[in-house]
Amino acid sequence: MSDSIRISVDAMGGDKGPRVAVEGARLFWRERKNTTFIFHGREAELKPLLDEFPDLKKVSRIVNADIVISMEEKPSQALRKGRGTSSMWAAIQSVKDGEADVAISGGNTGALMAMATFCLRPIEGISRPAIAALWPTLRTDIIVLDVGATVGGDAKQLTDFSILGAALARALFDQELPTVGLLNVGTEEMKGHDEVKEAARILQAASGEGFIYHGFVEGDDIGKGTVDVVVTEGFAGNIALKTAEGTARQVGAYIRNALKADIISMLGAAIAGQALQALRRKLDPRNINGGVFLGLNGVVIKSHGGTDEVGFKGALSLAYEMARSRVMDKIGEGMRRFPTLSVAPPIEAAPAPEKTEAKSA
Amino acid sequence: MSDSIRISVDAMGGDKGPRVAVEGARLFWRERKNTTFIFHGREAELKPLLDEFPDLKKVSRIVNADIVISMEEKPSQALRKGRGTSSMWAAIQSVKDGEADVAISGGNTGALMAMATFCLRPIEGISRPAIAALWPTLRTDIIVLDVGATVGGDAKQLTDFSILGAALARALFDQELPTVGLLNVGTEEMKGHDEVKEAARILQAASGEGFIYHGFVEGDDIGKGTVDVVVTEGFAGNIALKTAEGTARQVGAYIRNALKADIISMLGAAIAGQALQALRRKLDPRNINGGVFLGLNGVVIKSHGGTDEVGFKGALSLAYEMARSRVMDKIGEGMRRFPTLSVAPPIEAAPAPEKTEAKSA
Repeated sequence: MSDSIRISVDAMGGDKGPRVAVEGARLFWRERKNTTFIFHGREAELKPLLDEFPDLKKVSRIVNADIVISMEEKPSQALRKGRGTSSMWAAIQSVKDGEADVAISGGNTGALMAMATFCLRPIEGISRPAIAALWPTLRTDIIVLDVGATVGGDAKQLTDFSILGAALARALFDQELPTVGLLNVGTEEMKGHDEVKEAARILQAASGEGFIYHGFVEGDDIGKGTVDVVVTEGFAGNIALKTAEGTARQVGAYIRNALKADIISMLGAAIAGQALQALRRKLDPRNINGGVFLGLNGVVIKSHGGTDEVGFKGALSLAYEMARSRVMDKIGEGMRRFPTLSVAPPIEAAPAPEKTEAKSA
Repeated sequence: MSDSIRISVDAMGGDKGPRVAVEGARLFWRERKNTTFIFHGREAELKPLLDEFPDLKKVSRIVNADIVISMEEKPSQALRKGRGTSSMWAAIQSVKDGEADVAISGGNTGALMAMATFCLRPIEGISRPAIAALWPTLRTDIIVLDVGATVGGDAKQLTDFSILGAALARALFDQELPTVGLLNVGTEEMKGHDEVKEAARILQAASGEGFIYHGFVEGDDIGKGTVDVVVTEGFAGNIALKTAEGTARQVGAYIRNALKADIISMLGAAIAGQALQALRRKLDPRNINGGVFLGLNGVVIKSHGGTDEVGFKGALSLAYEMARSRVMDKIGEGMRRFPTLSVAPPIEAAPAPEKTEAKSA
C-alpha cells in the first residue's frame, strides 16, 4: 500500500448510472486529496463525465468494461456472464492484482459477493465471508455482522465472524479490545440455537485475545450500543438490519406528520428548524451507506444501489478508512491471536477454479 | 362465553407487584363495564388493594395462590415449583376450567409459555404454539409471529403460524381475507432457508382459504405494513421485535436531544407541543403492550413485566378483544379451511401429564 489510497470503483454498479459514482468520487476527493481512483465501466460513458471534473480526472484512470451486471441477475448468472469481463469483476480484480487497496460497487449484492468470493477467495482459516454493517447507536457506531452474506451459520462461522468484526472494530474505531456480543433471544427457555451456545463457549475461552467477549445480547442492545461488535448469522442479521431501517423510516414519517398536523405545529417545527435539520441528517441513511465484505483476501465495499452522490461519497469514506487502517493486517493479527484457530488443523485452500493446470507453476 | 367478558389475571406477574394489575384493571373496567375479573395471587396483598376500589371489587373475585413465579426462574423450575399452585398456573387453569374467557400475566415469558402449553395443550393439528405481537405500522396494526415461543421452525410450523396469524387478523381486524407474508432475506443468492421456501409453496397452494398469500417480505416491510400477517420462526421474529423496539427508543432519544439542543429548539418544541405529545403517545410502548399466545386450547396474553397500570390496561384491552372476537372459533374455522391440514393424518393428542389415571373418568 502506498501513501495514497487507491480505490477501485465499479462505476456501473448503482441504479442511477455512472454519474453517481463519478460525482461521489469528486465530493470525496475534495476532502481527501491523497486518493486515486480506477473507474471500471464503459469508457464512452465515463470519459465525458470525468471531463467535467478536470481535477478528479488527474488522479483517475478509466479501465473499459462493456459488460454490466444488472440488479436482477442471480449470482450464478452474473458469474457466467461477467467473470473476467464485467466492470464489477474488473473492480475486484484490481484489488487482487495489487493495483488498488479497496474495491467499491453499488451493484447487485449477491453478484458482488459471489464475484468477490470467487476472485479474492476466503482467507485461509476463515470458512465463509460476511457482510458487516456500521450501525449508528445511542453510544457510538458499532459493527453488526453477518447482515446477509449467507443463511445460517455454525459455531465455527460465528467465531470467525467475531474475529473479523473485532478486527474491523480495532481498525475503524482504534480500540485495542473491542467488546463482542452474540445476538440471541431473550426468553429463558430457548436461549438460542445450539450453534450460538457453542460459539459462546468458544468465545468465552478466547476472550482477551483481541476482543472482550461480553456474552449474549438481544435485538434492543444494538440500538443501545451495548457492545462494539454484534455477531449473528446472515438470516437474523439481515432481518434485524432491514427491520431497523423500516422502523427508522416509520418513526421519521410519524415525526413529519406530527409536525404538519396544524399551523401551530408547523410554526413550532419552523422555529426548531435547525434542530430538526440536524436530526434529519442523523437519520439520513445516505450518511451510513455501505456494507463491508469481510473474510476475503481483499476489501470490498458494497454501497447502496439506490444512493446518490452524497451516499456514494459516504461509502467511499468507509472504503478509504478500511484501507488506511489496514484492516487486512488487523484480521491476520486477530487470527494469530485466536487460540482455537492456532490449534485447529490447517484448512486447505480451495482449488482455484480459474486454472487447473497450475500445479507445476 | 357469556355476554360479559371474564378475564383471569395473574396479579403477581409483573415486576412491580399486584398494584399494577389491580389499578390497570380498574382503568380498563371504567371503559368496559361488561367485564369481570378473577385475580390470582396472595389474598393478603390483593384484598386491601381491591378494597381501595369498591366498584372494581364488585365485579372481581380473589383466588388465593401463595406461590409466585419469579422473573429469573427457568421454565422447568417454574413448572416444578408452581404447577397447580402458583398464581400463574391458576390464572391459566381458570381458562381451562371454563371460568374465564382469557388469561393474562405480566410474568416470566418462558414460564408462562411452558405452563400455558402444559395446562391448555396445543390445539390438535397445530404442532407448536407461537407468540404473536401486534405491531403498529405506517398503514395500520399488523400481526407478527412467532416473536419468541420457539427457536427454529420447519415448513409445517410456519404454515401453522400462518393459519393462527390469519385467524387472529380475521378476529381483531375484522378482515375476511388478511394477507400473509413470509419473512425472508433480500439478496437473491440466498433467498432463505429450505423451510421458508417449502412453507411458501404450501401457502401459495392454500391461498384464498382464509387468507391471501402475498409472498416473501423483508424486515422493512414490517414497518411499512405491506401485509396483515408476517410469519417467521421465533429466533428471527424475536430479534426483529427487539431490534425495532431498540430503534424506536434510539430515534426517540435523538428527537428529545435535538429539541433540547438550544433555547430556540426548545421554544419550537414548546410551540409544537401538542403534535410532539401525540407523537410521544404513538411511540409509547405502553399502548402496544401485550403478546398473544396462539395455538393452545385457550387464549393467554402476556403483558410486559415492567409495565405500569396504563400498560396493563392496554394488555387487558387486547385480552378483551381476543375474547370478544372469538379468536378460538376463528382458528378452528381457519384450520378446517386449510387444505393440507384436512388431508394430513390426524395428529394424536399428547398424553395429559397432570393425571395418569384419567382413562376411566
